[in-house]
Amino acid sequence: MRAYDREDLLFQLFDVARVDTIIEGTDLDREAVLGILDTADQIATDYYLPHAHEIDEHEPVFDNGRAILPDVVKPAVDAFVDGGFLAAPFSPDHGGLGLPETVHQAASFVFSTANISIKGYAMLTIGAGRLIQSFGTDDQKTRYLHPMVEGRFFGTMCLSEPQAGSSLSDITTKAEPMEDGRYRISGRKMWISAGEHDLSDNIVHMVLAKIPGGPPGVKGISLFIVPKIRLDGARNDVTLAGLNHKMGYRGTTNCALNFGENGDCIGELVGEPHKGLRYMFQMMNEARISVGMGATALGQAGYQAALAYAKERPQGRSPKAKDPTSSQVSLTEHADIRRLLLAQKAAVEPALALALFCAVLVDRHRAGDTDALTLLDVLTPVAKSWPSEFCLEANKHAIQVLGGAGYTRDYPVERHYRDNRLNPIHEGTHGIQGMDLLGRKVLMQNGAGFAALVGAIRQDIAASGHALGPDLATAVDRLEEVTRSLAAQVIADPERGLANATLYLDFTGHVVMGWMWLRIAAAASLRAGQDGDSDFLKGKQQAARYFFARELSRTDGWARTLMANDQSAFDMDPAWF
Amino acid sequence: MRAYDREDLLFQLFDVARVDTIIEGTDLDREAVLGILDTADQIATDYYLPHAHEIDEHEPVFDNGRAILPDVVKPAVDAFVDGGFLAAPFSPDHGGLGLPETVHQAASFVFSTANISIKGYAMLTIGAGRLIQSFGTDDQKTRYLHPMVEGRFFGTMCLSEPQAGSSLSDITTKAEPMEDGRYRISGRKMWISAGEHDLSDNIVHMVLAKIPGGPPGVKGISLFIVPKIRLDGARNDVTLAGLNHKMGYRGTTNCALNFGENGDCIGELVGEPHKGLRYMFQMMNEARISVGMGATALGQAGYQAALAYAKERPQGRSPKAKDPTSSQVSLTEHADIRRLLLAQKAAVEPALALALFCAVLVDRHRAGDTDALTLLDVLTPVAKSWPSEFCLEANKHAIQVLGGAGYTRDYPVERHYRDNRLNPIHEGTHGIQGMDLLGRKVLMQNGAGFAALVGAIRQDIAASGHALGPDLATAVDRLEEVTRSLAAQVIADPERGLANATLYLDFTGHVVMGWMWLRIAAAASLRAGQDGDSDFLKGKQQAARYFFARELSRTDGWARTLMANDQSAFDMDPAWF
Repeated sequence: MRAYDREDLLFQLFDVARVDTIIEGTDLDREAVLGILDTADQIATDYYLPHAHEIDEHEPVFDNGRAILPDVVKPAVDAFVDGGFLAAPFSPDHGGLGLPETVHQAASFVFSTANISIKGYAMLTIGAGRLIQSFGTDDQKTRYLHPMVEGRFFGTMCLSEPQAGSSLSDITTKAEPMEDGRYRISGRKMWISAGEHDLSDNIVHMVLAKIPGGPPGVKGISLFIVPKIRLDGARNDVTLAGLNHKMGYRGTTNCALNFGENGDCIGELVGEPHKGLRYMFQMMNEARISVGMGATALGQAGYQAALAYAKERPQGRSPKAKDPTSSQVSLTEHADIRRLLLAQKAAVEPALALALFCAVLVDRHRAGDTDALTLLDVLTPVAKSWPSEFCLEANKHAIQVLGGAGYTRDYPVERHYRDNRLNPIHEGTHGIQGMDLLGRKVLMQNGAGFAALVGAIRQDIAASGHALGPDLATAVDRLEEVTRSLAAQVIADPERGLANATLYLDFTGHVVMGWMWLRIAAAASLRAGQDGDSDFLKGKQQAARYFFARELSRTDGWARTLMANDQSAFDMDPAWF
Repeated sequence: MRAYDREDLLFQLFDVARVDTIIEGTDLDREAVLGILDTADQIATDYYLPHAHEIDEHEPVFDNGRAILPDVVKPAVDAFVDGGFLAAPFSPDHGGLGLPETVHQAASFVFSTANISIKGYAMLTIGAGRLIQSFGTDDQKTRYLHPMVEGRFFGTMCLSEPQAGSSLSDITTKAEPMEDGRYRISGRKMWISAGEHDLSDNIVHMVLAKIPGGPPGVKGISLFIVPKIRLDGARNDVTLAGLNHKMGYRGTTNCALNFGENGDCIGELVGEPHKGLRYMFQMMNEARISVGMGATALGQAGYQAALAYAKERPQGRSPKAKDPTSSQVSLTEHADIRRLLLAQKAAVEPALALALFCAVLVDRHRAGDTDALTLLDVLTPVAKSWPSEFCLEANKHAIQVLGGAGYTRDYPVERHYRDNRLNPIHEGTHGIQGMDLLGRKVLMQNGAGFAALVGAIRQDIAASGHALGPDLATAVDRLEEVTRSLAAQVIADPERGLANATLYLDFTGHVVMGWMWLRIAAAASLRAGQDGDSDFLKGKQQAARYFFARELSRTDGWARTLMANDQSAFDMDPAWF
């Protein structure tokens, strides 16, 4: 059984995201896209899904500076590489396949539903490689990027340090210039996913460090390439200090790394000194969208497992049934089980729509549309955070559908729940995304990003003519009013103005997901008009109605809290706890 | 470090629950109660808390029909028994200490915060023993109850079966009468907590089974005592078929048990035939309140861990701070961290207040107050469910406060989150509690239970004169209006009427927690008037304000959905998923 709904993925890709508008004029057509997704499906089915339980139960082991992974991981990443999925998103100039981001993300979704932990290694490599692709010299691209595209080298991003988790301003890793133009790196990095393994010939660490004498804080951060093994074959002085033992996501090693403990760690500067954080933000933004996609994939996998169980499991009777000797009915006959299933569907499907929409914006931007980037910028914190919060909630519901069975490790839903709990934390916590959205993204370019967002929503409302349009329009008006009010307060008093940034993030997210449901429902209406209605399409309309009735309606109360900018948490003196 | 806040527990017990009104006229005084809590604290600190991590990492192992537990469990349960905590809640007529339920529950809370898994063995034994105390013959009490009170025998409750989880109507375990008046038991039971272990000389299973020829459905269920070892020393035919491998709560064995596989399982009827479910409901109701207390304890333990971490951990700066060379501030200086902490406090403290309030009602009922039982009946589904849902949410927040560290098994917060996820499932799922509340409890005795609830809240509003009273009064009015509307629909059409029972449960729960916050805040005001204000008391007032602003305010939107009795989930055809 697949961990995702193929019919839904194709509908989302072709009918909602309209990938046809992206591939038009390229050498890709619908059949080619289907072929790529078939290949992804086959590899995911053969190498990813069957081992998800095993790699959860047998987490990597620290052995004398090495991380020992279960044997099943290597064949899975090899199949991924051999299938062209690592090369897919890179430019053909560097050996990549130049696949549109939209198609790449759809394929990523397939792998992530099957086994998010193994998928992690590729995700980091793609992010690290793209950094070099964007900011490295030609020589660096030849030496590091090309082997990454080929899958011989993997990559990481090394930002956090033990004393500086979310606060990059406080990193202390040092990069001292050497006479030959290279740098001597020393410091300790923490929470490094895929930081050590034997899956590739080399690991290319993209490391944030400070060059002595530079400006304090984030303005003094530079970016370095620090390979695990130098290209002359010598081991660089990067050592695995330990593995973190996580609640979930266990198949991806998460490492404490020591750089230059013996004074012999050599790195290369990427781009100009002191611009490292700016460069890294490209990777972080991509990573944030990937995190959202991963959270969505986990929500989807849980939903599919819960749905399959609910359809097959007989249990109890209707509240109306008086005859205890009648047969038990399927779980789906119970109203509250349908609610739990619908709540999952209502969360995971618009989350996928948003992830694909973001990918479309990336493709449009690559094609020269700068407005697409503005909209993507403002959507990024939402695309990262909303699925991390609400697809996790979906995973909670999936467990509930299975009841006691769902609480055991015999079924995958408890693993999805554990895996997904990481997503509101890494690549910028939920709280940090809120501050990014309210403190930066809605203010940037004199509010151009936010204007682009509400403009795009209103355009879709007008174009769709869908019955849910007016309710969404009301929510958008409310969002605009709240944003105007809070933005003024952020400027006047950043601390109090940002005190409810997280709630603002959830609020914006719900409006955006209402928008995604409108897009899905409008596409379903269109398809029904063309091909006739179907159970599949009716389900879209009903789930959209459910989302509006049960979730979008929450924005009403949130708007009141935000308009009042309630300070009850802000005013809590730490001493009073 | 304790996993609970002792000052808060004492405040809740003496100032909010007013245990003085319970112990008045008994041989207990304040000093004696403090002594009992000190003993609990000492045992929990020495034997429970230090091993919580270990028993999570090393779950019980199935070995040839036996369940092998880590060595640290036995000394912990022995210390509990030796400290008198197993005998505490039983009647002195049967060797018990006759401790008031309120004091017993306060002590339980201490153990549960330290190590909920080990606590499970005692909880089941107390529940099983009380069943015999209430419905067994004198002879059964002598033979089974007395050794349980002494801690020589432990107990279980055996309800679910593989084909019948929540639907007890469909159990098939058979009890065939033997000539000597005993019964031959045969069948398979599932999800039996503490179903096998070597912690006691014997295990007394309280088993639901059907006597052939009885009425179908729940009306044909009888209750049996089925010991693991017969009192003549022979092994009864009860075998451990397997252990369930759970996400959390790992230290408590959870078993599949086979009864009478070899035709030699002997049980004794408790009370009259076919009344087993009625008897069992006593135990289930107690168990439900205990589940709520356990969920509260886990929420509390997470909150304490998060609070301690946040106070000590320096990270980042205020949004106002421009100088990156200034020192990092403590996590508690960040508005969103204070929100995450306050959200936990706002959930776990009223949950404890409700658990203790329920215990007070038990004590009042024992003292002859029948109205107390009516109120307890209607509160039971709330006391079970609200903490299971919202203290789990608190555990999610605790992880978030710690960030990446919270996601590792080096800190206890991820374990609390995994442990607590069981609580919305066992002893009646969240959905079943909703149907119990709306379909049974608010309708019973012509609405007397519900009337008692709103009456009690209004009485406290009037008596307290607290500034939050009017907002709570509005919420209570709303609850009454919603209840009237839904109750009529339940009678007219049970299926559609109950379709939103779970939301109704959460709604009622939030109003009840608003009430608990009012009681806490009023007690804090009183204390401040007597002893002067303090940080501790200010924290109560602020958390109450936060709960009203952020949580009680949610009842507004929920009431609208419930008044409309939104059917968007009910109307989802299973084929449309």
